[in-house]
Amino acid sequence: MSNKYVIGYSTTKFGELWDYSLYDLVQTVTGSVLEKTKLEAAQVDAVFYGNMMAGIIENNLHSGAKLAELLGTHVPVYRTESACASGGMAFHLATMYLDAHPDSTVLVIGAEKMTDVSPPDVTSALQAAASGEEQLAGLTFPGLYAMLARMYMETYNYTEEHLAHVPVKNHFHAVRNPYAQFRREITINQVLKSPYIATPLKVLDSSPISDGAAAVLLTNSPNIRKRVAYSVRVLASEVATDTISIKHRRRMDTLQASVVASNKAYAACGITAKEISVAEVHDCFSIAELLAMEDLGFWAKGEAGSRIVTGETRLDAGGSLVVNASGGLKASGHPVGATGIKQIGELFLQLTGQADSRQVAKARYGLAQNVGGSGGTAVVTILGQV
Amino acid sequence: MSNKYVIGYSTTKFGELWDYSLYDLVQTVTGSVLEKTKLEAAQVDAVFYGNMMAGIIENNLHSGAKLAELLGTHVPVYRTESACASGGMAFHLATMYLDAHPDSTVLVIGAEKMTDVSPPDVTSALQAAASGEEQLAGLTFPGLYAMLARMYMETYNYTEEHLAHVPVKNHFHAVRNPYAQFRREITINQVLKSPYIATPLKVLDSSPISDGAAAVLLTNSPNIRKRVAYSVRVLASEVATDTISIKHRRRMDTLQASVVASNKAYAACGITAKEISVAEVHDCFSIAELLAMEDLGFWAKGEAGSRIVTGETRLDAGGSLVVNASGGLKASGHPVGATGIKQIGELFLQLTGQADSRQVAKARYGLAQNVGGSGGTAVVTILGQV
Repeated sequence: MSNKYVIGYSTTKFGELWDYSLYDLVQTVTGSVLEKTKLEAAQVDAVFYGNMMAGIIENNLHSGAKLAELLGTHVPVYRTESACASGGMAFHLATMYLDAHPDSTVLVIGAEKMTDVSPPDVTSALQAAASGEEQLAGLTFPGLYAMLARMYMETYNYTEEHLAHVPVKNHFHAVRNPYAQFRREITINQVLKSPYIATPLKVLDSSPISDGAAAVLLTNSPNIRKRVAYSVRVLASEVATDTISIKHRRRMDTLQASVVASNKAYAACGITAKEISVAEVHDCFSIAELLAMEDLGFWAKGEAGSRIVTGETRLDAGGSLVVNASGGLKASGHPVGATGIKQIGELFLQLTGQADSRQVAKARYGLAQNVGGSGGTAVVTILGQV
Repeated sequence: MSNKYVIGYSTTKFGELWDYSLYDLVQTVTGSVLEKTKLEAAQVDAVFYGNMMAGIIENNLHSGAKLAELLGTHVPVYRTESACASGGMAFHLATMYLDAHPDSTVLVIGAEKMTDVSPPDVTSALQAAASGEEQLAGLTFPGLYAMLARMYMETYNYTEEHLAHVPVKNHFHAVRNPYAQFRREITINQVLKSPYIATPLKVLDSSPISDGAAAVLLTNSPNIRKRVAYSVRVLASEVATDTISIKHRRRMDTLQASVVASNKAYAACGITAKEISVAEVHDCFSIAELLAMEDLGFWAKGEAGSRIVTGETRLDAGGSLVVNASGGLKASGHPVGATGIKQIGELFLQLTGQADSRQVAKARYGLAQNVGGSGGTAVVTILGQV
């Protein structure tokens, strides 16, 4: 049985945070997560940091030393980058650190500042997660996911209306999340009438450009765990990769990295998909949540289009699994490096009964899926009540 | 006693490699290190990748998935970035992976492509490793290290000629390294007459802009180790951080991160500085090797200026410690993400008697020091003969 625990979580609001720099956001969540757990910076043995694009956007690298300066520490600070899975990867490496270091406590931070440059510039920076060939072809991520959506809809006979149920559900949830970027409900009709970005995907099928930071504290120290109010067990954290170029994949109706990572994660802890009651999945575009539901073993292949319309994964459905209670990337916002940490944080809140008006009843096991690029990297984490 | 071993090493030549892309270089060393060890790609359980600036220079992120595509694998691929210590950090995290995963084999790659853009653009990209304030002040890395050099020279009463002995030694070594960028001897006079970049540092005090890749294989699998011809034990790998801004440091005549990391490394394996017979230190500028010799405990504080002129750390001196037998960053070249791996690789060659005309006699223990920025990150690795 794993002896690794998430013991605290803090996040900024996600959105257009023009008054805050990247490191303002990092400093905010660091101070806040330490305060919530009543730990001192000196009790942190290492820091893991997920950020994708500060190098491109603000010529800002070597964040490890920048964080060391903020925290006033000489401890190791590890920056990891795996596109939009940078946060999940930071968490994953932090669990590895604990496996290698008994009696330790680790701070994991994800952060991204995306709104300080123009939309074309941030779109171009996001393209850095695609293959060179895809970039040269002018394929942006809406374009790449539009191809996946088109293939899925044609193979399984679904329409744009089936996809639209994803953002409608996730906006419904975000109303209940005070840190979400978009706290308003939307209708199927609004989604269908929103402008196309890359047919068949529309504005309201797409996660936004966001600023934000999130942090969790992880420990395997029995003494530290005794002192904190809340803890959740890390049951599994697995990573898998796939080809960066979608043209080199055998199938386009699945993200193979998610399948491999989730199968490894279920096997590692002996929990099955049926036992998960709360999941945060990487809905960067509506199609991505449908693929995730199938790839993670919640629903059978080809079934997601019809299952999503039943609303069974909505908080108010009373079903056995609630998906993206935080609002997901779509409505909670998607500061790319922060997303993987926010997902873990949402599970932490749900499994410790701290999710207030969006609390999932009787949540015992939670799963987070964080995806890089068009599926070149996937991180799957399973947490459980202590 | 550590059960982690370096079992293979491959490097490209370092230099202006205009015929090769970043991933050409990665593919070359990957194929070559597998071939040398007679291992298959399928026997690699994870990949760690150090690269600093491909995001800025060629809008190229998410290398994890790009490497997965090159290697034809679904295994985890972790990209780490810590400025010029990116390679050392990748190696360090790989040793952590082995601590957490028994019976595993890991490929560690460092690579950088710096000559495809103009010198001002690469200088600007390198500045991303400094604080925002330092960048705004126009402080490039030659400028930052020039300040360290000036402080050291004035505090301990040394001249530019003392500094010049570093590159003269390292060029002497590089003549014996077929993969080095500059395989020619230089004289003290040539160094002193070379143009200033940032007084008191001159062109011949400074490591060059380089392309290159290097790879090592690491294992803790007894079966794999039995099958390979060479292995070297990983005795310690430690990381420490310091403030990113030099103005926030208490002293400027030392890199505190190197002191902390090396003290931790010596303590971890019970080896003392006196027992090290071959060291690769981060001589990005002449002053950096002098500081390293003191910070790593080889020489007393303030002594390096006078010790370096004795030539005792030269291959032909017959001393107890040879430093930068590869030619160091100065003469072997400094493709930043690759440097930390090349340092480990040089120790591997030295400790297994494969260093040909630059072989250090009776080398039993080796130390590598890889520095990020102006000392915001330091990675210290100690390897020993099996």
